Amino acid sequence: MAAKTGKSGSAKTKIKDLKAEIRKLKRKAAKLRKKLKAGAAPAAPDVSPLAPAGGFPPLPSIAGVALSATAAGVRYADRTDVMLARLSPGTSMAGVFTKSATRSAAVLDCEAKIAGLAGKGAGKGGFAILVNSGNSNAFTGAAGAAAVQAVTSGAAKALDVPVRHVFTASTGVIGEPLPVEKVTGAIADLKAGLGAGGLEDAARAIMTTDTYPKGASAELEIGGAPIRIAGIAKGSGMIAPDMATMLVFIFTDAKIEQPVLQSMLSNLTGPTFNAITVDGDTSTSDTLLLAATGKADMAAITSARSAAGRAFAAALRGVMEDLAKQVVRDGEGATKFIEVAVTGATSPTAARKVALAIANSPLVKTAAAGEDPNWGRIVMAVGKSGAPVDRDALTIRLGDILVAEKGWVAESYREADGAAYMQRDEIRIGVDLGLGKAGYTAWTCDLTHQYIAINADYRS
Amino acid sequence: MAAKTGKSGSAKTKIKDLKAEIRKLKRKAAKLRKKLKAGAAPAAPDVSPLAPAGGFPPLPSIAGVALSATAAGVRYADRTDVMLARLSPGTSMAGVFTKSATRSAAVLDCEAKIAGLAGKGAGKGGFAILVNSGNSNAFTGAAGAAAVQAVTSGAAKALDVPVRHVFTASTGVIGEPLPVEKVTGAIADLKAGLGAGGLEDAARAIMTTDTYPKGASAELEIGGAPIRIAGIAKGSGMIAPDMATMLVFIFTDAKIEQPVLQSMLSNLTGPTFNAITVDGDTSTSDTLLLAATGKADMAAITSARSAAGRAFAAALRGVMEDLAKQVVRDGEGATKFIEVAVTGATSPTAARKVALAIANSPLVKTAAAGEDPNWGRIVMAVGKSGAPVDRDALTIRLGDILVAEKGWVAESYREADGAAYMQRDEIRIGVDLGLGKAGYTAWTCDLTHQYIAINADYRS
Repeated sequence: MAAKTGKSGSAKTKIKDLKAEIRKLKRKAAKLRKKLKAGAAPAAPDVSPLAPAGGFPPLPSIAGVALSATAAGVRYADRTDVMLARLSPGTSMAGVFTKSATRSAAVLDCEAKIAGLAGKGAGKGGFAILVNSGNSNAFTGAAGAAAVQAVTSGAAKALDVPVRHVFTASTGVIGEPLPVEKVTGAIADLKAGLGAGGLEDAARAIMTTDTYPKGASAELEIGGAPIRIAGIAKGSGMIAPDMATMLVFIFTDAKIEQPVLQSMLSNLTGPTFNAITVDGDTSTSDTLLLAATGKADMAAITSARSAAGRAFAAALRGVMEDLAKQVVRDGEGATKFIEVAVTGATSPTAARKVALAIANSPLVKTAAAGEDPNWGRIVMAVGKSGAPVDRDALTIRLGDILVAEKGWVAESYREADGAAYMQRDEIRIGVDLGLGKAGYTAWTCDLTHQYIAINADYRS
Repeated sequence: MAAKTGKSGSAKTKIKDLKAEIRKLKRKAAKLRKKLKAGAAPAAPDVSPLAPAGGFPPLPSIAGVALSATAAGVRYADRTDVMLARLSPGTSMAGVFTKSATRSAAVLDCEAKIAGLAGKGAGKGGFAILVNSGNSNAFTGAAGAAAVQAVTSGAAKALDVPVRHVFTASTGVIGEPLPVEKVTGAIADLKAGLGAGGLEDAARAIMTTDTYPKGASAELEIGGAPIRIAGIAKGSGMIAPDMATMLVFIFTDAKIEQPVLQSMLSNLTGPTFNAITVDGDTSTSDTLLLAATGKADMAAITSARSAAGRAFAAALRGVMEDLAKQVVRDGEGATKFIEVAVTGATSPTAARKVALAIANSPLVKTAAAGEDPNWGRIVMAVGKSGAPVDRDALTIRLGDILVAEKGWVAESYREADGAAYMQRDEIRIGVDLGLGKAGYTAWTCDLTHQYIAINADYRS
């Protein structure tokens, strides 16, 4: 490096110039960083920033439930993608499924099997649930039904469970044939691996675009006997449940007659899995199964209205709501968890319409992503909902901040307060319609660049 | 600045260090630039890539219509933001408005005035339309109604038109008070500027996030007399009309009785402005006004079913469809124009449900943005629509390419063909439900990073 320094004076000048250049470069970098922050899609996080702290929760083993997971290579490399649950004889089984008119072959098969259980008492041969990720086996015509037949009868044979008691669920790409042999070929492995616990492995095996496995549990006592409930879920996009959502499997050792179990599950789906939305799109594969093994030392619950029935339903609802919220927290590209609480509606249906109109509005969700307290977009969403609304009776809150009332911005509202509130990870939009007594709470997430990045390049 | 250089050697070291720091900073900046290029939403184009070639079309002057536009500084600097149209005595006026329950004060006023015209024959004092952009005057309580009163009576006085014949429309931010004096203060200027032509200036004055002004026209002959129709529109986001959409003003010199004009306009809104969606969000300000000045040398149209009525309606529909499509082409962030054509439905309502379920699906729209022929998402959207659907009767096409039929992918379908097709600017999704004879065609655009960029940072 040829030094050009002639005398001390010109060195001084040189140093001065270089320092000026450094300042200029630093300004340029700061500008680029600002630009990057403002306009760019951030690199996809490995795990949703909204994932529950502490990772997968410790879940209890459920007596009468054996689980297993393995890698069958359905679509993904180097990860587990099939799970098996075996439920002991005496188990009651309930299920709720997507109402999509193009639901998958597996869903159609599950529906028929749950319908066949009604009023028959606990199954004597026990049950099995076999699930794969990576391929949804939806819109796969006659081949789809044949695949379900092959997979369920393979599991029935291996586990010595009647085929009418074997449920299957598939999640992943729509319209591609399920590689049946990969799934049936994994059954021996899955059977060998069956054991107590294993819920976290099972939760991992059913993930698709999920960034973390989802689990929740509850414990209660009924007549002095400890009862456990534990469940797992998968779901991240195509979330706008029209009954259940995504895949959810819940296990309990409680002793409950099948019709009671089924009615509890159906009723509790409304305020839990049906109250969440990520993108307003409804999966073809939504499957929610609840197995009660009856292993707990208790008298069977024969009515949802009994004290035991009510106590169990409350605990079950807690697990379902927890799992539902975890799905929203893993919403594709989510950076904000948003609760939309509607009160003062003329009917529960009206309250739900308003809550989902807000929760599904791209303009509300992008405003949240931009941390913009743009409450005018909430007004817009309320207006388009189709529910009975009186503009001048409407009250809007962000958290505890009163934003608008009586048809206009509240006198006490300061934009700076709203802006500060919107910087939180968890946002609560409160809308009181001021017309009646009905309410509904929905949960959703924001709509970000990452949602676009994930979905504009998911398959091809 | 104290020079710390002691001897030439230490100056050399200093210079060497500074140069190293500069190299480091340059590397950092290059890295940032690369990151910005890879991950960032592309810079917003000045004009939508889907804008009609050739710019704003040449529009004919309409006899009996005088127009004017000026800059009132409602919100934007350095651009026009108010427009005035004066319609000569003898004009028939028809209107269609948003059904939003939170519609703006201006919309409520227009609705009442149109209702008051029914069955009254052509207005003797003529009409006026005064429009501002930058502020929607929606959800502004009693102040909103007072603002409408001030603006319309200001125009009525200046133009010597009865106030019941002065219509106003506002578009822009929701929930902020309209700076009334800025609008009323511009009326004298607007009046002075009134002249024939001027539709392009008017179209520019009503733009908000629009990237180009929208205009369309038609000419026809009725009984040997030349008839002209010319219209302008604004709209880019918050587009999911629930009757009309955004702001649209159409003028014609035809002579038509008001009830006939109104019924034509209402009927033609369904297959035109109600058939488009950008984001599924419905504006609080949607206003569509149609003024027929009656200046053409023709007998008045007194029935929509007459030959003259049918001819006029066909030409009007063309103008309305053209403007509706231009709004979609200017959809926020749009890079693809998408036509969704549903046939074989059991009813027009069912066909519309399916078409809009597809056109509003974020997963279908992001797939289009990613040029991914992910037809499984079309199946999903059909399934969630709630319309009667038989999975195995369904046929899906991309343009002329048969993609799926009989419940599965078509034998002849090659993924490469679908992928090549998706690279077009204009995509046609054809869905035949195979159940009946009803059909519906909707128009939408893709969902891109730019939509997020525009809407996560529009107001704050």
